[in-house]
This record gives sequence, C-alpha cells and structure tokens, in this order.
Amino acid sequence: MAICHHHQPSFTIPSSFPFTTNLSNKSRLHLPSSFRCNLSVTTNLEPEPVYTAVKSFAPATVANLGPGFDFLGCAVDGIGDYVTLKIDPQVHPGEVSISEITGTGNSAKLSKNPIWNCAGIAAISVMKMLNIRSVGLSLSLEKGLPLGSGLGSSAASAAAAAIAVNEIFGGKLPALDLVLAGLESEAKVSGYHADNIAPAIMGGFVLVRSYDPLELIPLQFPVDKNLYFVLVNPEFEAPTKKMRAALPKEITMSHHVWNSSQAGALVAAVLQGDLKGFGTALSSDKIVEPRRAPLIPGMDAVKKAALEAGAYGCTISGAGPTAVAVTDDEEKGREIGEKMVEAFMAEGNLKALAMVKQLDRVGARLVSSIPR
Amino acid sequence: MAICHHHQPSFTIPSSFPFTTNLSNKSRLHLPSSFRCNLSVTTNLEPEPVYTAVKSFAPATVANLGPGFDFLGCAVDGIGDYVTLKIDPQVHPGEVSISEITGTGNSAKLSKNPIWNCAGIAAISVMKMLNIRSVGLSLSLEKGLPLGSGLGSSAASAAAAAIAVNEIFGGKLPALDLVLAGLESEAKVSGYHADNIAPAIMGGFVLVRSYDPLELIPLQFPVDKNLYFVLVNPEFEAPTKKMRAALPKEITMSHHVWNSSQAGALVAAVLQGDLKGFGTALSSDKIVEPRRAPLIPGMDAVKKAALEAGAYGCTISGAGPTAVAVTDDEEKGREIGEKMVEAFMAEGNLKALAMVKQLDRVGARLVSSIPR
Repeated sequence: MAICHHHQPSFTIPSSFPFTTNLSNKSRLHLPSSFRCNLSVTTNLEPEPVYTAVKSFAPATVANLGPGFDFLGCAVDGIGDYVTLKIDPQVHPGEVSISEITGTGNSAKLSKNPIWNCAGIAAISVMKMLNIRSVGLSLSLEKGLPLGSGLGSSAASAAAAAIAVNEIFGGKLPALDLVLAGLESEAKVSGYHADNIAPAIMGGFVLVRSYDPLELIPLQFPVDKNLYFVLVNPEFEAPTKKMRAALPKEITMSHHVWNSSQAGALVAAVLQGDLKGFGTALSSDKIVEPRRAPLIPGMDAVKKAALEAGAYGCTISGAGPTAVAVTDDEEKGREIGEKMVEAFMAEGNLKALAMVKQLDRVGARLVSSIPR
Repeated sequence: MAICHHHQPSFTIPSSFPFTTNLSNKSRLHLPSSFRCNLSVTTNLEPEPVYTAVKSFAPATVANLGPGFDFLGCAVDGIGDYVTLKIDPQVHPGEVSISEITGTGNSAKLSKNPIWNCAGIAAISVMKMLNIRSVGLSLSLEKGLPLGSGLGSSAASAAAAAIAVNEIFGGKLPALDLVLAGLESEAKVSGYHADNIAPAIMGGFVLVRSYDPLELIPLQFPVDKNLYFVLVNPEFEAPTKKMRAALPKEITMSHHVWNSSQAGALVAAVLQGDLKGFGTALSSDKIVEPRRAPLIPGMDAVKKAALEAGAYGCTISGAGPTAVAVTDDEEKGREIGEKMVEAFMAEGNLKALAMVKQLDRVGARLVSSIPR
C-alpha cells in the first residue's frame, strides 16, 4: 500500500485510503494507477495552462511526533500558507517570478529570488517536471505560518506552490512527484527530509519508509474519530543548529528497542484510531525529546501541564519550539492550551499562543481558480 | 486498544479485534472488560476444577520479525506443543508434577522438575494466581517444536501449560495474566521477553509496548487475506550466547531512524494487510540481522534464494537458526522453501527442513477435555 517512486510500475492506493477519498476535495490532483508510465511517454509534450490564475493552500504539519522522529508527520487543518499563481506574459517563458510575500511576523526574512525561496524552488521543480517552456508565471506567497516554529512553514510554502503550478497546467502530475518537487525545496532550505512536505501535500499521516526510492505510506486515521492538536507556539527562536547538535550520535540498544516499539505503537494507534495509545506513544520518546526539551525554556513543564490537563500526549512539534498536545475534544483542547501557555510563562518566561486544530485529511489543494 | 496490566481498571478490547473474534474458538479463555477488578476481590476463593483432564495446544511463534526486534511477534498455525493436564490425587495439593515429556529430537534435554521446566513454571504461576491449594495436577508435555530453533519452543510449552491450568479450573484468568505467567517461565528459561509468549497465548501479531506495566497491542492482519510463513529449520544449533553477544551495544542515529521507520512500516503493513510492504519491512533490518546472519552458515544465501523465488520478505526467526520467509500462496511457499533448503545445503553445508504454515489467529487453546 506504499506509494513508491521508482521501482513500481504503478501506484497501488487502496480505495479505502483517505488519500483516494480526498481526491474529490482536491480538484484534480491525479493519483492514477498508471500515470507515471504514461508520463514517461508524454513527457516531451508541454501541457497547456487550463487557468489564468489559481490560488492554493497547504497546511501546517507536525513532524517527528515523538518516536516518529525523522519519518512520520501529519497535517493540521486551518493553518498554513497560500500561493496565488498567475500566467504572466511579463515573466520570461519557462520561469517563475515571486511578485509578493505577505503574512506573519518574520516572513520579511524570505528571499524573493525564486531559487532561494521554498515556494520558488518547488514551483521551478514542477515546471521542469511538466516541461514548461512557453509560459511564465508570477507567484505571490501569503505566509500563514511563522518561520522556524516547528510547524513545517517551509514545507507549506513549497506544497502550496507545487500544487498551484501543477493545477494551473491541468493537474498532470501525481502527488508523489509534487512531494519530490517539495523535497528539492526542503533539501535547500531545511534539510533533505520528507516528513513535513509529504503530509503537507497528501494530508493526514504519512510515514516515509525510504528515500531511495522515495516510498511513502499514508496512514488513515479512522474518519469517524476526532483528533485535535493543541499547538502552543512560544515567542522563542529555537536554535536550529543547537537542536541538530543536541541529537545523540549513538544510541543504546535498549533505547533503540524502546523507541522502535513506541514507533510501532504510534503507527498502530493511528490506524486503529486509538487516541489514548496515540498519546502514550507520542509522549514516550527517550531519544530526541529528552535532548531537545531542555533547549526550549519551560518545555518540560508545558508537557507536564498538558498531560495534567487531560491531553492524551504531548511532545515537541518538529524541531520546536512549538509544543503539540493531542485530545479528542475541541473545548478540552482550549483548556489544555491555556494551561500550556501558562506553563510557558511560569517556567520558561515565554509568551505563547495556543491554537486547537483538527487533523487535516486533505493536504495541499486549490481554493480558487480563474479559467482561461 | 492496548491490553494493559496495571494502570487500567479494565481491559479495552474493541469488538473488531481477532482476539475477541477468536474467543468462540478458544473454549473459555476469558477476556472480560472488568475481570481483573473482580479478581482482586475474589482472589481468596479457590475455584473448583470443572474438568478432570484437559489437553491444550499452543502454537510456534516467530519473534523479532526484522525491525520488530524484541517487541513484535506472531503465531504460526499447525505446529506447536501439547499439554495434557489431569487432576491427580497422587500429587500434593497445590502442586504440579510432570509425568512425561515426549516429542521431537532434543526434548529429552528438558527437566521434569517443574521449577526448571517452562511448562512447569507457567503451570505453577497460574496455580498461584488462581490460589489453588486443594488440588494437585499432573502434566504431560508433548513437544512438537525442537528446542533452540528460533520458533518459540519454550513459549509454546509455557502457553500450553498456562491455558491448560486456567481451563481446568474454569478459565477464570484473562489472557494477560496467562502472558504474565508465561513471562515468568520465559524469564527463567530464555530471558525476560514477551514477544514469543504473548502471540503464543493470544494468536496473531502482538506488539509488546511496555513491560512496566505489561502492555500488549494485538495487531489484526485482515481476515480476508492469506499470509503464509515459510519456515526453514537447518540442523544447526545457533550459539545463543554468541547470538546475544553479536548485538551491537550502540547504534548510529541513522540506523536507528531507519529501523524505527521500518518498524512503523511493518506495523502498518500488518494492519493494512499489505503483504508486499510487510515483506519489504521484514527484510529491511540494518541492526540485528546483519550481525546475526553471519553466525548461521548459509543464511545470507538462504535469504537471497527466498527473495529470488518470489518471497515478499525473509529474515531470521527469533534468534535463529530458522529462516522465515513470507508469501500469500501455499504452493508458492513450498517452492520458496525448496530453494531455501537448497541454499542452506549449498552455502552452509546444512541439512534443513522446510514447512509452510499459515498465520495462527487463535493462540493457545483447549483441544479436548473430560468434564467432571
């Protein structure tokens, strides 16, 4: 059931997957069973644009998920980045220009040079895959996510851009190609890892089984169950280098077995819709969280506060500083969030903002379009 | 959905689980939602025997399962150990006596002293849990599994004994208590690990999430799918000490992340019934198998032969020397087995025996009984 890039001649996505179910919501993102084969035949044909402009959205993502470090991520609904993309005769054919970047706090830091911008890199990559040579595009990026928050900000920009370019030319590429395009962007901006970009594009939970070939396993959280993420983002710039340096180089066998079993339990809990088991596994990382939490002032107290307030589990989102807790009730989520915000202030002397967001099961999608 | 020993007042087993489904096949192995609570109240009452004799069976198990090292195991049907248990006035009340041990090759090695015999230890443990003081039992053990083969021989004996004692007194104890009884036996005989005893008692795939408290997660492989294990047992005594010593003490971060992601993929494949994904994950261990395979003559060639013959995956069963490959077709399984046997001879100069067995979804059960 994995979605695999190279070694499979065709995609095999069972009909029960949210990924397939979601297609109706995803305008025309193709996930056909044999599209890649056709593509290799038709790759020299440049597709015509089907819209003059599109607007897309891609959600925030929570990667790592405790024992899911570096291979598991999920998308959260109602927060993310927007891309508006236009056919632009002013832009050199085959190229993309970034006309505007707007949005939250630190987005002014972002380069408008497309080869240094996550959205730009992903857009160029998709244009190359589609072999676009006759049309120029201008892209406007609206950041809904702060940079460096641990919520997959760069992945959301890349995912929104990738799907916008694909859709403006008729949605020829399958999701996996868009993930590859986004991965190029992630590699330049935040490291070669797909655990944000894959769920940003595909929605839901995605397990990254391998990179060579890229093989992704969508994990369906049961549609009849609620899952809310309490995301608490403190005013604190997580020292990315320190966060990386804090990772142990060597791990004991017993910690490895422990974390692996928790990773297995985490995956089982997602597929079985077991919130309690999900929270327990999420909170159980003995390898990464214990090293990184001390670098985020108040994090240990925030986790404690979340669990005491009734969260099923809590850990660091991505590389932080955002803390993520889980619950099955939105109102309960708000209470948990308040306690977490209080703990960030009391123990870390940090102001923080809490949000309660549902699992996003759709991933990157068009929100509007202007036909030609 | 985990089955948990201490911290939960009751078991929570969803009705969709094979574990529950299998109850109809399992005579009266109790899995009630609140039995443990009742037990703590009624623990001083000694249950009456409901049979004068019972015969039980417990299946072989494949533990480790590649990246599932030390926390994941499953049961295989049609091969295992039998226990015949009788109410015996000749035996001192509250005690168990081992009257006979029969069966395959090296079973003569086993002690008839119940405190040194896996079946005896588990039987005594269950008798203590049930507070049996007025009845003595005699136990006869029929080994269907060779010792030290990597197929959970000691766990099968313990599981068969545990369920026999529980059933002869009316099946008062839930499965988790029987696993705890079996774990006592395993701890004395082969180390404190539940990845054989849990599936031997519960059937199917079982993930051991934690030991303190003992928490087990049954993983249901879809009932409409076939899963065959090709078990190839060479005439070779795996050097247990060497097998343990071969384990690395420290693991690199990249190997840890790889194996964890494969563990997650393995669990997903079981729950999704994805044979191909299951085989790929099974074969992907970069930590344990590469250290242990060289200690089993021919193992690398056997794995290669299995994959070339069309197996979805192959690894070492338990600590070896048995090799386990997986397929969805019995006839195909026989062909794969032949190639594996040939490879053991050609590359390891070892005679070997191949069996093709289905996943056992039931676990330890009564096969006959004589009412009082």
